[in-house]
Amino acid sequence: MDAAEFRRRGKEMVDLIADYLENIEQRPVYPDVEPGYLRSLIPEEAPEEPDTYEDVVKDIERVIMPGVTHWHSPYFYAYFPTANSFPAMLADMLSGAIGCIGFSWAASPACTELETVMMDWLGKMLKLPEDFIAGTHGQGGGVIQGTASEATLVALLAARSRAVRMILASDPQRPETGITSKLVAYSSDQAHCSVERAGMIAGVRMKKIPTEQSDKYAVQGETLRRMIQEDKAAGLIPFYFCATLGTTPSCAFDHITELGPICNAEKIWMHIDAAYAGSSFICPEFRPLLNGIEFADSFNFNPHKWLLVNFDCSTMWVRKRSDLIGAFKMDPLYLKHDHQDSVCSTNPNPLIPLCLTLSPPLPQTTSQHWQIPLGRRFRSLKMWFVFRMYGLKGLQDYIRKHVELAKEFESLVRADQRFEISADVVLGLVCFRLKGSNEVNETLLKRINNGRKIHLVPCQLSGQFVLRFAVCARTTESRHIREAWGGRLIIMAETERLE
Amino acid sequence: MDAAEFRRRGKEMVDLIADYLENIEQRPVYPDVEPGYLRSLIPEEAPEEPDTYEDVVKDIERVIMPGVTHWHSPYFYAYFPTANSFPAMLADMLSGAIGCIGFSWAASPACTELETVMMDWLGKMLKLPEDFIAGTHGQGGGVIQGTASEATLVALLAARSRAVRMILASDPQRPETGITSKLVAYSSDQAHCSVERAGMIAGVRMKKIPTEQSDKYAVQGETLRRMIQEDKAAGLIPFYFCATLGTTPSCAFDHITELGPICNAEKIWMHIDAAYAGSSFICPEFRPLLNGIEFADSFNFNPHKWLLVNFDCSTMWVRKRSDLIGAFKMDPLYLKHDHQDSVCSTNPNPLIPLCLTLSPPLPQTTSQHWQIPLGRRFRSLKMWFVFRMYGLKGLQDYIRKHVELAKEFESLVRADQRFEISADVVLGLVCFRLKGSNEVNETLLKRINNGRKIHLVPCQLSGQFVLRFAVCARTTESRHIREAWGGRLIIMAETERLE
Repeated sequence: MDAAEFRRRGKEMVDLIADYLENIEQRPVYPDVEPGYLRSLIPEEAPEEPDTYEDVVKDIERVIMPGVTHWHSPYFYAYFPTANSFPAMLADMLSGAIGCIGFSWAASPACTELETVMMDWLGKMLKLPEDFIAGTHGQGGGVIQGTASEATLVALLAARSRAVRMILASDPQRPETGITSKLVAYSSDQAHCSVERAGMIAGVRMKKIPTEQSDKYAVQGETLRRMIQEDKAAGLIPFYFCATLGTTPSCAFDHITELGPICNAEKIWMHIDAAYAGSSFICPEFRPLLNGIEFADSFNFNPHKWLLVNFDCSTMWVRKRSDLIGAFKMDPLYLKHDHQDSVCSTNPNPLIPLCLTLSPPLPQTTSQHWQIPLGRRFRSLKMWFVFRMYGLKGLQDYIRKHVELAKEFESLVRADQRFEISADVVLGLVCFRLKGSNEVNETLLKRINNGRKIHLVPCQLSGQFVLRFAVCARTTESRHIREAWGGRLIIMAETERLE
Repeated sequence: MDAAEFRRRGKEMVDLIADYLENIEQRPVYPDVEPGYLRSLIPEEAPEEPDTYEDVVKDIERVIMPGVTHWHSPYFYAYFPTANSFPAMLADMLSGAIGCIGFSWAASPACTELETVMMDWLGKMLKLPEDFIAGTHGQGGGVIQGTASEATLVALLAARSRAVRMILASDPQRPETGITSKLVAYSSDQAHCSVERAGMIAGVRMKKIPTEQSDKYAVQGETLRRMIQEDKAAGLIPFYFCATLGTTPSCAFDHITELGPICNAEKIWMHIDAAYAGSSFICPEFRPLLNGIEFADSFNFNPHKWLLVNFDCSTMWVRKRSDLIGAFKMDPLYLKHDHQDSVCSTNPNPLIPLCLTLSPPLPQTTSQHWQIPLGRRFRSLKMWFVFRMYGLKGLQDYIRKHVELAKEFESLVRADQRFEISADVVLGLVCFRLKGSNEVNETLLKRINNGRKIHLVPCQLSGQFVLRFAVCARTTESRHIREAWGGRLIIMAETERLE
């Protein structure tokens, strides 16, 4: 396919995409296929000679669409949202065409630099402390990761490295493996499974801090403090705490204003995972949920969830760039470039020209030291297009609308005596259940999903099987919420049949 | 921006992309900007109200392009290629629109299933042993990772977990941290820096195996064997060897037919990293380079480098799925789905219906257990479009053409007495230098890159500063090679000035 044919096929694809998204409501939100459905629909091997493009496009409806869970249908209420907007798609097309691999400043200066500035834009939207903004005289800054799982792991690795360095500084003879085996990290028992997995990857102990329904599933300072004291008494070295703002099961918020000072006093790295909820902090009325950020060493959330920037775009800030870089740095000759050492990263001289102190994840360092993969797409283009085409106000309106829709669903549930709300509705997630056994709720969920008109997933809260209703799609409106509840008789009808 | 406007802007973007790629030769391949150039060109904060789309598009030329290193220019010979093709871009547009997050089968069955089948297609193109193909009765299969760095790490983690399990099976009382601190992994001193970094992340010892110019920078069986014996004698536990097929500095190939049996006998996990060279194995004449794959536990290469599938698409196969899954498995309720346990992954019964045994990274498991990030794009669409629109023959032609172009450059260098070739030219990389000091070669490279007509990066081989000339862009032709050497007087002219 040459450029001329791409002009034609690309425009057809633009129409196909617009058609798909405009008519997505007509498709069953959850596919009616059995595992293995696809293999028999296509050949067992790649063709020797090229297929025609017409055949490929025909197969989108024949092979792919029957097996797609339509995350952008306004009837999709499962998991958490994943972002999808037209400006982000346009930017991603451009990113694919430029196709640079931004592992260092020289590999494509625009890629590294736009990322640093976009991270500052977003950091300012969130009113992050100046320490986290690269374009100041602070020592921090932001970087785009692929997913929150990676950010959690990167923070854990930086924390591990910092802890080992601190201990070796006071006891240089101590063997490093002996230190690692004594390290202990903490997170809520409500934290995402990827936090526990980060501990497995890094080979360190990860303890879950128990939470209670009566505390709204938030980690309590007293509990953390007690665990730290017990572990220290047992000869362990507490070094990392991952706080969650907006947990996956119920969107609970750890009290970081209370937990942060404990971590600071104990020299424990506090990472904040706000994967879903983070986007809401651009609204002044939700920003108080982030109070306590001033105690954090690192912070992460996913604009690719709720801020209209298509996957992948998980934004992470650190208070001290050198903590991250120290954990990863490698400089083989084939990645060296002229500007690598043009500025000393620890140079505190405010008179150095702005353009030299403030750029990239720093010109003299490179993004490769900030993340697990070496290669990276030009992902900041998506942020730039979305922030400019929506403006801060447009983004705030979008968040507010989803929260309103969730509140609307909550009031529909509350108005029905058979149901109960299982956790505070703070943002766009409603946790609810039929008053009664877990079995009856499991049956209800199964029937709802088998109906394929809406799609939900469950969670477990205090031993109870709970249904999660997350407002997800960009195009969800009040009528969809009402239809989900009763208009199309979906939840209501299935409930009737249970009784 | 609504769907109607997207139809218009999307088509404009298609033309912008086609224009960019058709005229890329006219742009200086390497940007003439200083670190920090971008920050002053755009506002310090995101706009409150939306910008116009016209303004955004204007800024592509004003802000972005001056800072882009044009990886797809036929004058780009740095690093290794990164893929860029029109079919892959079309597929990626579709992937962005569907925008599903394929972390489990239920999250979008088509996403998981097409990936498994595409990995089989590609595995068959490479003539991988049946063990690695999911659609057989073997226990292996393939998965798409973001980058080779991630694949190396995932293999290392699986190996670590397997080693610990094996030791605990024979000595259940042994403390696990005591085991990890004794583990030792190996890779060539020519291996990519991400291999060493994987060791740092996993917290295990990683030893570099010395190589010699006289052995063409390949790891020798005798050296590996000796290091293993010495380490065992010292009480260490060898558990992982990362072989490289096509190293980054000089495209050297470890002798895996010799190394594999050593690893198998010692129960050491052999991972093969063929990030760049792997694509060439689809050609029968290059497939012998992969001989010895039958001894490997895992294998990885990057179609996003040299197989026309845009970044990111790093394909990884394992001999035993359960080895990977065991290292990562987590199953919180919010990710459970009906088909999760529909088949027992260890069920060896060949009578189980094909559709149930052969699907996904297995229906009952989920891709989340195969990788570091939890979320994932619908990346197999790119493979499907590219394989079908090029056909196997088209892809083979593409590889062969790049190798021929490299050979052409090699003969230009060899014809000039002032230069020497520094390593065998096997595929698309030519390592060369002026006979003389490192300083004169460093000066030559600096002048070439400052000229911005072509772009190269260096490497170090046996203490020598060497220039790497990698055929990269899809549109590179013989005339570009000749121009790079002398036609546009680039390398030649700079050399004259040195004398």
